[in-house]
Amino acid sequence: MTHFKINQKDIFFILKEQLGYGSLCSLKRYRSLTEETLDLMVTEAIRFAKKAVAPLNEIGEEQGIRYEKGQVLCPPEFAEVFRTYGQDGWTAAARDPEYGGQGFPHMMRIVVNDFMYGACQSFNMAPSLTHGAAHLIESFGTGELKKAFVPRMYNGTFSGTMCLTEPDAGSNLAATQTVAYPEGDGYKIKGSKIFISWGDHDIADNIVHLVLARIDGAPEGVGGISLFVVPKYRLDDHGGVGPFNDVVCTGIEDKLGLHASPTAALSFGAKDGCVGYLCGEPNRGLAHMFQMMNSARINTGVSGMTLASTAYQNALEYTRQRVQGKDPAKRKDGYVLIIHHPDVRRMLLWMKASVDGMRSMIYTAAFWADLAAEGQDEQSRQHYQALTDFMTPIVKAYCSDAGFRVCETAMQCLGGYGYCRDYPIEQYLRDAKIMSLYEGTNGIQAIDLMGRKMRINDGAMFAAFAKEMENFIDAHRDHDHLGGHVRDLENAFARVREMADEMRRRSKDDPLQWASYTYPALLCFGDLVMVWRLLDMACIAWDRAQKKGRKNDFFRGKVAQATFFADMVLPHTIQRAGTCTRQGREIVELADTAF
Amino acid sequence: MTHFKINQKDIFFILKEQLGYGSLCSLKRYRSLTEETLDLMVTEAIRFAKKAVAPLNEIGEEQGIRYEKGQVLCPPEFAEVFRTYGQDGWTAAARDPEYGGQGFPHMMRIVVNDFMYGACQSFNMAPSLTHGAAHLIESFGTGELKKAFVPRMYNGTFSGTMCLTEPDAGSNLAATQTVAYPEGDGYKIKGSKIFISWGDHDIADNIVHLVLARIDGAPEGVGGISLFVVPKYRLDDHGGVGPFNDVVCTGIEDKLGLHASPTAALSFGAKDGCVGYLCGEPNRGLAHMFQMMNSARINTGVSGMTLASTAYQNALEYTRQRVQGKDPAKRKDGYVLIIHHPDVRRMLLWMKASVDGMRSMIYTAAFWADLAAEGQDEQSRQHYQALTDFMTPIVKAYCSDAGFRVCETAMQCLGGYGYCRDYPIEQYLRDAKIMSLYEGTNGIQAIDLMGRKMRINDGAMFAAFAKEMENFIDAHRDHDHLGGHVRDLENAFARVREMADEMRRRSKDDPLQWASYTYPALLCFGDLVMVWRLLDMACIAWDRAQKKGRKNDFFRGKVAQATFFADMVLPHTIQRAGTCTRQGREIVELADTAF
Repeated sequence: MTHFKINQKDIFFILKEQLGYGSLCSLKRYRSLTEETLDLMVTEAIRFAKKAVAPLNEIGEEQGIRYEKGQVLCPPEFAEVFRTYGQDGWTAAARDPEYGGQGFPHMMRIVVNDFMYGACQSFNMAPSLTHGAAHLIESFGTGELKKAFVPRMYNGTFSGTMCLTEPDAGSNLAATQTVAYPEGDGYKIKGSKIFISWGDHDIADNIVHLVLARIDGAPEGVGGISLFVVPKYRLDDHGGVGPFNDVVCTGIEDKLGLHASPTAALSFGAKDGCVGYLCGEPNRGLAHMFQMMNSARINTGVSGMTLASTAYQNALEYTRQRVQGKDPAKRKDGYVLIIHHPDVRRMLLWMKASVDGMRSMIYTAAFWADLAAEGQDEQSRQHYQALTDFMTPIVKAYCSDAGFRVCETAMQCLGGYGYCRDYPIEQYLRDAKIMSLYEGTNGIQAIDLMGRKMRINDGAMFAAFAKEMENFIDAHRDHDHLGGHVRDLENAFARVREMADEMRRRSKDDPLQWASYTYPALLCFGDLVMVWRLLDMACIAWDRAQKKGRKNDFFRGKVAQATFFADMVLPHTIQRAGTCTRQGREIVELADTAF
Repeated sequence: MTHFKINQKDIFFILKEQLGYGSLCSLKRYRSLTEETLDLMVTEAIRFAKKAVAPLNEIGEEQGIRYEKGQVLCPPEFAEVFRTYGQDGWTAAARDPEYGGQGFPHMMRIVVNDFMYGACQSFNMAPSLTHGAAHLIESFGTGELKKAFVPRMYNGTFSGTMCLTEPDAGSNLAATQTVAYPEGDGYKIKGSKIFISWGDHDIADNIVHLVLARIDGAPEGVGGISLFVVPKYRLDDHGGVGPFNDVVCTGIEDKLGLHASPTAALSFGAKDGCVGYLCGEPNRGLAHMFQMMNSARINTGVSGMTLASTAYQNALEYTRQRVQGKDPAKRKDGYVLIIHHPDVRRMLLWMKASVDGMRSMIYTAAFWADLAAEGQDEQSRQHYQALTDFMTPIVKAYCSDAGFRVCETAMQCLGGYGYCRDYPIEQYLRDAKIMSLYEGTNGIQAIDLMGRKMRINDGAMFAAFAKEMENFIDAHRDHDHLGGHVRDLENAFARVREMADEMRRRSKDDPLQWASYTYPALLCFGDLVMVWRLLDMACIAWDRAQKKGRKNDFFRGKVAQATFFADMVLPHTIQRAGTCTRQGREIVELADTAF
């Protein structure tokens, strides 16, 4: 029995019936693939997540990691699975075969991560960061760099990290202090980084850090930051692991959750000198790094959603087994399963809708990302790229916060038992909390969405988003049964659009007042996407939901979660949009001493 | 430097300016007291909380508790403070001097608990449960029982517990299986209890369990449950600690939080026989126990609020010290304190309002409880008793959930640091989570409010509540500046009243549909009370808030938090009230297999 629970039917309903992901196989890059191959990959990924990754969750939580004499030590099972994970192709599932990838659609990386993060959040950060770091080298590095590092990162021999944060440069990367001194053909790196996930460990032969640093003498601010490849061990003449490169782990954080994921403080070049290799153009490091940061942001949303998903499934199982209390409608004598208590069902239905809506949001965004990268014509690629960029902060912030809320609600279904470590939910809750904090706090995501993303190209991203929403609304506004809910969505969208217009004006004229309400504004967009995706699924499921028989309960579930969620959420969305443009200036005007 | 932070000015503003708690000294029971004595007690309690109790929080979290050979072992500092806490009079602050109490108003117990729980939640459960158990004996026990146990519980020599839950009788006490067999003059107790807070430990000489059990042959259901006093050690002939009474701790729970509060499984009379003393009338045990349960429910709300309070104060301090990012309105060059970022200020202001509103809600309810117990005339006592009963589930559920939400938001203000154990907030978050689960889950509180409390005496409790709300609204509807917000509250209240009426009908005609929305309905009431209390404070502060000078910032804070919170929350209250009476029947009709 594994802690990790997932309903495979929900996964395939989104992939096949809602998105028709088999259509990706008609794109040039995927011509050798078929929908059956993709299906097989999904079931295999779930199998691997359950069998290999899920057991690490308990091992990691029980044994944890140790920091001893500048070294992080992990449970031995982690090294074993990290190697297999790479060798079996999961790390580089979506990368090109040239450097060892499997050539699957980009979206499959997200789908695979859904299962792997759900099985063990702490562990899966290692291959996921490794993928991101290697992909960065693949995208911007020289041929030599690529050959030296990428294949061994993809196959689980080396791992990778992203090194951004410093003690005074967290949310504000412009303050980066780490310096790269030119020396001969290369650079010597000097500086400190903190909060580096999997920054040190013993589960791979080498650790390849992707480091933001300033070339000595570079301009101040973000325009003076470059990207470097800095391995823990230099490579020897044959490309094997050579001498220590003076990357010292000076400590790890003691955290609320993620107990099996080392969060390291690193010191570069304090002693013997630390060699770094420039990756991409000088002073363009932050722009390059955004490839990895955006990917990490999406993965943060995936983590929030998938922890919520397994939390919900665990709560559901519990409510189907636990007997407590009498039936409130006195339909039967004696005590009943707690799934028969309406308040418990309310929580279950809300969780079900939240998880399915978030998963559909994420898979849809991932599908769009594939069309953006591999679509046939330029105009279409631009449209989908705009959608992808627009969705990134929404996926990150909304799914991290809603995911945490689902974990909390799942615990509530278990009563006092949910608070005990005998059940996995308290760990999910702890692990999930980081998602709203790292990879740019949710407040920063909101500023990104309501600022940059709303303004770029005269609002082209929002226009792309609006077009997709309108297409759905136009197609289903007159649905015999769900049309009323679709029109509710239309009304809410109109209200949110007004709010967005007003906020765009304020972002120039009254930036403090604007910034006071960017986060609730982001939530409005998240709500809209949720209801849209849920209603879309409901429309697909509608006909079968009307048919008799137990086997159609699944489809009735899709309809019920959509109408319930829309009715419960959209009224709040409309009101929240109203609060975002309120006139009251308390936030801006209150003196610091008045708090 | 203690983790525990509190703004004393906020406390006294509610006590003195909003409630005028000095007026209690005119009641017969308190004629020997003056407002100055009460003030002194508040400052002394804060001092004791900071100096003696707060250090236990870190000690308890670091060292935790151990279970060894049927014994729970606590850090030695706990025993020391438990004794002093009793001796100094904090345990029995509000009890009558006859058995060792200090004779202070009942509300002072709540006020003292505010500080003590905030200083160390895990520890303060011990004296708080001890008080509740001793008070139960004082209320319902024989003279002999009272003399034997109560003074030594109040003075910190013995501790006390409440033993309700069994493996199959958690929320459903009707299923209680523990049996009391008559033997001679007394009873022999046989059974098991779980989830007993401070059920075993080594911080007092004896542990006095207040146990629900069925006298052998008693009727089924709650009408067959009696209350027993069951000490861990029997008393010897001189009233000292005598032989072991066969109350065995069979294990403690490993929990998300409250790491220094042992949650014990207890076995009564499995081996040598366990003597219990009947407390109160046979088969009236649950009714008696409700005195302690109601008190525990209020204290749960207090805990949620006070953890939120110190979490907010810690976040506030952090945002006043941490520099990060540029000023969004470019008012100054360089980087700014994060309290200057509007999104951070939004979180701070919401937390400030939430904490102050909850504290006012709780203190007001406590003040009413005093008037209910000690008021001059019968009619007035009935009015305030109705209010107290009505408020209990609201205080418990609303303040536990909102308190948790504040802890979460406080963490968000610290970014990644908030996730680290270097700061106290992650512990607050873990400790606070239990509040929505124990002492009756929040779902059960909602059923209590919208069911029993709404129906009893033809809605007399709600009528009492409505009268208080209306008095406030009538008095301030035409306030020159805050009148608009008061009228918003009036509108929201009207809407919630309609919802309550409709739900009362449904509770008879359509109990499953009714029970599907009891929890959001409770939230509506919580919102109303919050806005009412905040606007009341704002009206009091208004004149001084208009005056110039730094020293009036405090009053400007009272006004700003009220207008901001009212504007942000009431629109949602109205919408939520609407969802509570919606027609959709998904929760009721969905098949179990459709989840």
